[in-house]
Amino acid sequence: MKLATLHDGSRDGQLAVVARDLKTAHMADAIAPTLQAALDDWAFIAPQLDSLYAQLNRGEARRAFEFEPQRCMAPLPRACQWAEGTAWLHLLELLRRAQHGAQPAQGLAPLPDALREEPLLAQGAGDAFLGAHDDILLAHEEWGIDFGAGIAAIVDDVPMGATPDEAHGRIRLLMLANSVSLRQLMPAELSRGAGFLQSKPATAFSPVALTPDELGDAWRGGKVHLPLRATWNGHVAGQLHAGADMDFNFPQLIAHLCKSRRAGAGSIVGAGTVSNRDTTKGKAPPGHACIAERRALETIADGAASTPYMRFGDTIRIEMLDEAGKPVFGAIEQTVRKG
Amino acid sequence: MKLATLHDGSRDGQLAVVARDLKTAHMADAIAPTLQAALDDWAFIAPQLDSLYAQLNRGEARRAFEFEPQRCMAPLPRACQWAEGTAWLHLLELLRRAQHGAQPAQGLAPLPDALREEPLLAQGAGDAFLGAHDDILLAHEEWGIDFGAGIAAIVDDVPMGATPDEAHGRIRLLMLANSVSLRQLMPAELSRGAGFLQSKPATAFSPVALTPDELGDAWRGGKVHLPLRATWNGHVAGQLHAGADMDFNFPQLIAHLCKSRRAGAGSIVGAGTVSNRDTTKGKAPPGHACIAERRALETIADGAASTPYMRFGDTIRIEMLDEAGKPVFGAIEQTVRKG
Repeated sequence: MKLATLHDGSRDGQLAVVARDLKTAHMADAIAPTLQAALDDWAFIAPQLDSLYAQLNRGEARRAFEFEPQRCMAPLPRACQWAEGTAWLHLLELLRRAQHGAQPAQGLAPLPDALREEPLLAQGAGDAFLGAHDDILLAHEEWGIDFGAGIAAIVDDVPMGATPDEAHGRIRLLMLANSVSLRQLMPAELSRGAGFLQSKPATAFSPVALTPDELGDAWRGGKVHLPLRATWNGHVAGQLHAGADMDFNFPQLIAHLCKSRRAGAGSIVGAGTVSNRDTTKGKAPPGHACIAERRALETIADGAASTPYMRFGDTIRIEMLDEAGKPVFGAIEQTVRKG
Repeated sequence: MKLATLHDGSRDGQLAVVARDLKTAHMADAIAPTLQAALDDWAFIAPQLDSLYAQLNRGEARRAFEFEPQRCMAPLPRACQWAEGTAWLHLLELLRRAQHGAQPAQGLAPLPDALREEPLLAQGAGDAFLGAHDDILLAHEEWGIDFGAGIAAIVDDVPMGATPDEAHGRIRLLMLANSVSLRQLMPAELSRGAGFLQSKPATAFSPVALTPDELGDAWRGGKVHLPLRATWNGHVAGQLHAGADMDFNFPQLIAHLCKSRRAGAGSIVGAGTVSNRDTTKGKAPPGHACIAERRALETIADGAASTPYMRFGDTIRIEMLDEAGKPVFGAIEQTVRKG
């Protein structure tokens, strides 16, 4: 099923069920007031939501209304945990090559083995996520504003020490994410060793969160095997494949998170920015799901990056189409503004 | 006023008002069901809670009952943000000296200026806090289980770009914290640069959260000027002063957090483990609020640490007494167990 959270003036919004074709919706507040409330008692609530979803798809729901993604908050407007991985190591490799290439004395550092053996996850803040159409409000362009197109999973309770197989069974919902980074604030934070804080402002999520079964065969091996498109100021920056080159799948990311602690229902685990190796041999290359990857390639090729980061007024659109070319999650469509 | 959250089988528990002397309590569910609900609408809810608190202290509350800290969940059992700073640089200095002393080739590295100019904050997970009497469940002693006695603030909404003065006015509640660390998992995580994840299991908080006005003159300059005691297996490990040697106050920590993003109501900002310089000149030294500090001093003095980390069955008690020797927040009393 597909779920969304609609603005109602409250902090957590109101839960709605959205039709498979994203054309109609139906309030679900008679079943659960918020998505967190549904996740808190998923085994009991989900079947009721699923029943309403089936009615809605058959055109039999009594109070269906037109689904307007502009009215959406993030499916979970705030979450008790937001941890983001770097599941596509290709991006890390490029960033490191670009960084070290600019400092030839240090040589080209290959990716440390530790990063290939275990996923890298960072804790983030879950207090203020953005809806798919919310502006990205930031004070300074000079912070190096970058988008980051990716996928995130919302989990049920996961016990400490869960294996990847166990974690797999605790994935309840999937969403698209725009994980915004302030690239110019990152080096100082990385050098201080405590992870990302100021360099990671609010993340935005797709209008709709969906249960993995909605993806059919495209959800396999803990990965989403569908194309992901990032459009920056109306030009396609990346036409990627989210199932390709993903070095750690969602179950592995979640099991890593839960090695020494449990995760509470409603925790969100992001897989990071999608990044594909260019195996097109002259045909259209996959492009990039963030500006940093493009700048890294420019730096490796030319010694310096030529593409600037986002400016106030820039737009970013992130969407995933199914094999029939239809939108799966609805699109993230944001504008960067001075805030 | 003093507030607590009592176990009722739900994830967020039930809000209660606790008398100043911690002897009686009164359910506050007729005013706000949970502490998060109160924080979501603080300007409207707090005066009502305060009125009940006054009744309770006068012995006039109609359904007062004995306050049992064993029944407490964390005041906020889960939070949309948990960020922890390192406000006492003395601890960082000792850890670095011990680390570099063990690797003489690198020399004794002084604390980088950047760490003196801006506070270090790390995002943590807010999904599963522990109540003051909850066991610390961990799978392996070999992870290097350490307690960490400190103080945390719960804030109201804080806008992006808030100054320390503005942040000061957004602090709603204060609590004691036991910020548990898995010290043997930290070096690998630090070397990977994405902050703390597996090395920071669930944090525990005091039975009671209180409004800063409860501290009177002891709350000044954005610091809590009261003694903090950590008792490990029945022996006082640290008899510290939380107002001393604190290099960054709470308003500075919160302003740092909000440089590039707002913080939502109910975000918790911890100041880290209290650490005092020994200026006693032969009298009883202040001791330590975490084992890592003691091990660092041993390493600096003797070349190796001799105090082991916590074992299954170990107990830790953290409390703060006012100038009359009375407990302010109630005590954190936890036992480490294999989980």
